[in-house]
Amino acid sequence: MKTVSLNNMACEFIDIILPTGGQFIMAMKSYPLEKAFTFIEPGPVLLVTTYNESRYNIMAITWHMVLDFTPKIAVATGPWNYSFNALLKNRECVLAVPTIELAEKTVHIGDCSGKTIDKFQQFGLTALPAEKIKAPLIGECLACIECKVTDYLESQNFFVLQGINAWYDEEHKEIRKFHANGDGTFVTDGPTLDLRNLMEDKLPAGV
Amino acid sequence: MKTVSLNNMACEFIDIILPTGGQFIMAMKSYPLEKAFTFIEPGPVLLVTTYNESRYNIMAITWHMVLDFTPKIAVATGPWNYSFNALLKNRECVLAVPTIELAEKTVHIGDCSGKTIDKFQQFGLTALPAEKIKAPLIGECLACIECKVTDYLESQNFFVLQGINAWYDEEHKEIRKFHANGDGTFVTDGPTLDLRNLMEDKLPAGV
Repeated sequence: MKTVSLNNMACEFIDIILPTGGQFIMAMKSYPLEKAFTFIEPGPVLLVTTYNESRYNIMAITWHMVLDFTPKIAVATGPWNYSFNALLKNRECVLAVPTIELAEKTVHIGDCSGKTIDKFQQFGLTALPAEKIKAPLIGECLACIECKVTDYLESQNFFVLQGINAWYDEEHKEIRKFHANGDGTFVTDGPTLDLRNLMEDKLPAGV
Repeated sequence: MKTVSLNNMACEFIDIILPTGGQFIMAMKSYPLEKAFTFIEPGPVLLVTTYNESRYNIMAITWHMVLDFTPKIAVATGPWNYSFNALLKNRECVLAVPTIELAEKTVHIGDCSGKTIDKFQQFGLTALPAEKIKAPLIGECLACIECKVTDYLESQNFFVLQGINAWYDEEHKEIRKFHANGDGTFVTDGPTLDLRNLMEDKLPAGV
């Protein structure tokens, strides 16, 4: 691993751990499904992979929310995204959680269409086989959740997903996620506040 | 202003700017509605105020998402929350954005019911008059969005809100929001990545 600094910080210097080149080492391990919502709830930018007509694709999303702990998750998208047809037709996807070293790639992923580009190849990302669906995990992400599409609400332009299997890379050195402000800037994860003592009686089982 | 440290940090020391005591000074100023989604999109914990039967109430929510730039916003809640009836009946609320000095209060707000408690009084918060609805702004928050309830989707347990007026406290010294991990810990805002140069052509007008 080497440590580099990202050029375009708005307010502070920040060190980002980039993986060195060479062979990709699969480090994704199975993760308890009942805790998978904890990756989504804080609102990080997500990558969504799909499989359609023998091709993988990736889109970036920032509009999503947890709907329950199982986890049920809503993601807002519509026909203007190439991934939309894959979601509607094959009714499955992977929600992958990138960390800050992938921020620029994530913006680029959101800025081009899978209609003409193989985004895994274009952006040097590793498609790993999921266990229960055909859409792939992204090896370079911190965590992945395999999901089935259970509903599409056309009136609100969003899909309801049911998480069915979760993965986590315990060896991922960089664990800071990033959150879109919607104006081209992204807030990165800072320190964590531990307030478990105030709410232990309210936490769902296993969390 | 004085600077103090929060006791229960999980991983790092963090300075939080707390306001000194004394008279509350109203510093909320009108904010462009078309930029209001930028407070919600990064996924911070929100406070939701309502007005019902001559009483104000507050709840904390972490499950929400932006649905469009106008802004349309979804918030997940249901009959198990006391605020639910107020939302359903009066069809309005304020989304208020707390910063990290309000983290502990926010957890406590989420841990008790407005059925028996005046939460503004209990937690020393200032209800300020909104402009277009009866639900109040929270003077101690960084930003507030007045919203109308436009839809309730019982099948998914969430409300669709239409933001109609926005406020921002330019004099708020602490601007770091916090994001629920769902396990009793909260990730605070760290440094901001500025990637506007990669996506300027895609940003909505005025943002």
